[in-house]
Amino acid sequence: MACGEFELISRYFGRELCSRHDVEEGIGDDCALVNVSEKKTLAISTDTLVEGVHFLRDIHPADLAYKALAVNLSDLAAIGADPAWLTLALTLPKVNNNWLKAFSDSLFDFLDYYQMQLIGGDITRGPLSMTLGIHGTVPRGLALKRSGACVGDWIYVTGTLGDSVAGLQLLRDKINIHDQVSRDALIRRHLRPIPRVPQGKSLRDLASSAIDLSDGLISDLGHILEASSCGAQLNLDALPISSVITKNFSAQQALRWALSSGEDYELCFTVPEMNRASLEIALGPHGVSYTCIGKVFPQENGLTFLKNHKPVKICLKGFDHFRMHEGCI
Amino acid sequence: MACGEFELISRYFGRELCSRHDVEEGIGDDCALVNVSEKKTLAISTDTLVEGVHFLRDIHPADLAYKALAVNLSDLAAIGADPAWLTLALTLPKVNNNWLKAFSDSLFDFLDYYQMQLIGGDITRGPLSMTLGIHGTVPRGLALKRSGACVGDWIYVTGTLGDSVAGLQLLRDKINIHDQVSRDALIRRHLRPIPRVPQGKSLRDLASSAIDLSDGLISDLGHILEASSCGAQLNLDALPISSVITKNFSAQQALRWALSSGEDYELCFTVPEMNRASLEIALGPHGVSYTCIGKVFPQENGLTFLKNHKPVKICLKGFDHFRMHEGCI
Repeated sequence: MACGEFELISRYFGRELCSRHDVEEGIGDDCALVNVSEKKTLAISTDTLVEGVHFLRDIHPADLAYKALAVNLSDLAAIGADPAWLTLALTLPKVNNNWLKAFSDSLFDFLDYYQMQLIGGDITRGPLSMTLGIHGTVPRGLALKRSGACVGDWIYVTGTLGDSVAGLQLLRDKINIHDQVSRDALIRRHLRPIPRVPQGKSLRDLASSAIDLSDGLISDLGHILEASSCGAQLNLDALPISSVITKNFSAQQALRWALSSGEDYELCFTVPEMNRASLEIALGPHGVSYTCIGKVFPQENGLTFLKNHKPVKICLKGFDHFRMHEGCI
Repeated sequence: MACGEFELISRYFGRELCSRHDVEEGIGDDCALVNVSEKKTLAISTDTLVEGVHFLRDIHPADLAYKALAVNLSDLAAIGADPAWLTLALTLPKVNNNWLKAFSDSLFDFLDYYQMQLIGGDITRGPLSMTLGIHGTVPRGLALKRSGACVGDWIYVTGTLGDSVAGLQLLRDKINIHDQVSRDALIRRHLRPIPRVPQGKSLRDLASSAIDLSDGLISDLGHILEASSCGAQLNLDALPISSVITKNFSAQQALRWALSSGEDYELCFTVPEMNRASLEIALGPHGVSYTCIGKVFPQENGLTFLKNHKPVKICLKGFDHFRMHEGCI
């Protein structure tokens, strides 16, 4: 039976028979939020990466360690948290010292950069996979949730969209481009996504909601809209596409990737009109572009699209490991 | 290359380039300890279970959910923590609704019993395995660490030793016993170990160190002795063996299991002489036996054994997934 990851989680693990008073958000946002003191909330997230599903078999261990941590940091970024501690459960088919050295060197470099500490580890034997548990802190009451968007808010994304999937397709030899600089840039965007941690922290006081783009814009914005009981209108002409993509691929391909491809790990967030003017002060210094791509509408409007100022119809689904992946169920 | 799990963790992941001021214990105890307020410490632990390595392929999903949680609760018990929140990363080869229903029903029953809440989940496609991240709280300064044992302290264990491995051998048809009641009791001890959470909490003010017996008494007591820079003398005649084992197996087999077999999930702890008298008040009401099995000695004495009041030599190694398991590297 084909069944999506989100549906499975909701159906079998969405129950909350015991609702602890210290749990502010359980399953359903980028991180769980638990209140540990009057001033502090912990943000906790966990992600598994399986060989052949989430990463290619021949990925360099340094890239793998980087990406595994980046993916988890991106969840903290989406909630506006300060990264703090990591747990790593690593399952290995065999002991390869060169692999382990390269993996752990890369992991610790990246942890140091974020002043994080690895606090727990488990190594087991089995097919190559890993589960990271990431913990961050956020001042109580300031976490960015998916559920805070309001009608009239503006929808933004950081960076550019679709580069990661182009890099993946290049690595898989599904597409080819001759310009080596472009090729390297796209592959780097796939292997070394930069989690928008400083942006998330800067948006704590300004954004009404946020999510990181792991599954694709339509899918991930859909989570904000569902949690906030809103609709939205996206301006397709405004979607930020990198010059590398524009130069090497058709506008239609670029649009398709921007809307539905996963793993860009940019932030998508909504901002009330009154906070728009403050965005430049908050985000400008980080040196990464941010772009207004649409507006929040009432729920009954659904998700609609404008192109050349006219409504257009689009049918695209998000990226879901139990539905979309190659060799899937 | 044959290489142990503990050695791998220490060699590749034991670095602490960034030592955060809020991390009281990083890698190396049953749980990591992080201080989140002036009064509260969080205990965090993560464990992975892989099909064919940590559980049998035909295990019932209800038993699997129970055991996965029990194993992690046992880590909290060893630190003296109150269970609070769980994250679950589940990797499944395919979607089987009956399996998922039985697994999740069992998990939530057990979570409710401990007033815990599942706060984060991830479901991915791949070979069956799961990683649980468990979080508990302990009053600041009262966590039971491996490093607190002192020369002269008495060594105790809860419950009885070796039942779990006998249950596993029965399930694997490696041994057989005809008495169905005994057989069921041992299998139950393997499939449904009871984490000693209330005992751990009661020991906060009394024990100088503690660990849970996941890898076998010699291996796990060894961790206490190493962390505390001590030696120990164990009285083999005092090791608590269940009547089921005594009735069905030789004394030698029972002794071997008690010393070196894993997954009993009892607590091993050390108690200063002055606190011994308080143990009955603290542990008695929980209805599980506890037994003094030896004494902490200076490190230079190493680990020695007494039988019939005379020194004996024993050579046994612990249970380590990269060294001991069948079909291992």
